[in-house]
Amino acid sequence: MEKLTLYIGNKNYSSWSFRPWIAMTAAGIDFEEVLIPFDFPAGNPKFKPISPTGKVPVLHHGDVRVWESLAIIEYVAELFPDRGLWPGAAADRAVARSISMEMISGFRALRNACPMNIRRSKGRISLPEDVMGDVARISTIWSGLRRKSGGPFLFGEFSAADAVFAPVVNRFEAYDLVSNADTLAYMASVKSHPAWIKWQEAALRETWIVPEDEA
Amino acid sequence: MEKLTLYIGNKNYSSWSFRPWIAMTAAGIDFEEVLIPFDFPAGNPKFKPISPTGKVPVLHHGDVRVWESLAIIEYVAELFPDRGLWPGAAADRAVARSISMEMISGFRALRNACPMNIRRSKGRISLPEDVMGDVARISTIWSGLRRKSGGPFLFGEFSAADAVFAPVVNRFEAYDLVSNADTLAYMASVKSHPAWIKWQEAALRETWIVPEDEA
Repeated sequence: MEKLTLYIGNKNYSSWSFRPWIAMTAAGIDFEEVLIPFDFPAGNPKFKPISPTGKVPVLHHGDVRVWESLAIIEYVAELFPDRGLWPGAAADRAVARSISMEMISGFRALRNACPMNIRRSKGRISLPEDVMGDVARISTIWSGLRRKSGGPFLFGEFSAADAVFAPVVNRFEAYDLVSNADTLAYMASVKSHPAWIKWQEAALRETWIVPEDEA
Repeated sequence: MEKLTLYIGNKNYSSWSFRPWIAMTAAGIDFEEVLIPFDFPAGNPKFKPISPTGKVPVLHHGDVRVWESLAIIEYVAELFPDRGLWPGAAADRAVARSISMEMISGFRALRNACPMNIRRSKGRISLPEDVMGDVARISTIWSGLRRKSGGPFLFGEFSAADAVFAPVVNRFEAYDLVSNADTLAYMASVKSHPAWIKWQEAALRETWIVPEDEA
């Protein structure tokens, strides 16, 4: 098979890059990673020739270009049907995709107020009220699914749904947003996954600063 | 197989309901439709017991609940793999999902300024500048794919990608946003699809008014 190349942004900040990267890495898929750091405020001129939207992540596979993090995950799940990117049971897959789409189309209050920032020292900031509504809904999703599956992840084994929520695990931690035991237990499971640790180590080594994402 | 029940909002306004409805109807899938009108400004109390997010659309299939329009489409595509919900070629499917996710996670300027409104008389309104950036990107997507496939739809036959953009066809028309021939030709193809016509006829018969969506 032709080589898969995943173009990503800074590991410290690029939540959209983190999603397909951790999904593919956790599934043991072989791919080349090309990191192009954000170049604010000039925009990202290097993203233009590689991506139809001028944004990362984007996956190159021969002549095929796949953009948007969840479309990349679906593409890879079809290429590697035996790697368990989505849960095996149809009913679980339906819920996994529902919560993934809910993440991707929503939770804007949380996403805007609390940018992913792997290097950030844990600590609260003053938050708009609607952020805590997002936090409550996400905590409910995580706790309910984990209780049903028995854990350690949302559907037992690590799946694309855990990948989609991985940047939120950082947000909850970095901005000290939650205190209930079920939610903290899920976060601990994600943070101890080898793919999370690999991304985190690389993010901690980065030195680029994006002021817009330093809340 | 157990019955599929799709819960939707007002046909005149509910762009998110329109997407799975037209995808399923165009694919000839048998389902029961339950319409629960929006009940502003009191919120939507009737949505709570049927949907984990308190929003429509939501699909019920036996004990399974699927929410978020694209998750519903993926679920149905898996249930009916022969109905061509997604394009048959892997490379086309990758692009179809990429543009669908781009629609679902983005184009917020257009979505906020120009709500879907099937009954609206065609006419321009004053628009924030970034709306026309969204219009240009969507026109580029449509024209490029249609030129490549030969039409009449984005990937030849009507697919989930056309369903995802169907509400935008109304927006472009209702707010008179485009004038180039390629884009208008695609819009004419969508508007002449029997599933579009069926939804439109029902929307025109509705009498509910949602002031927030009357731009």
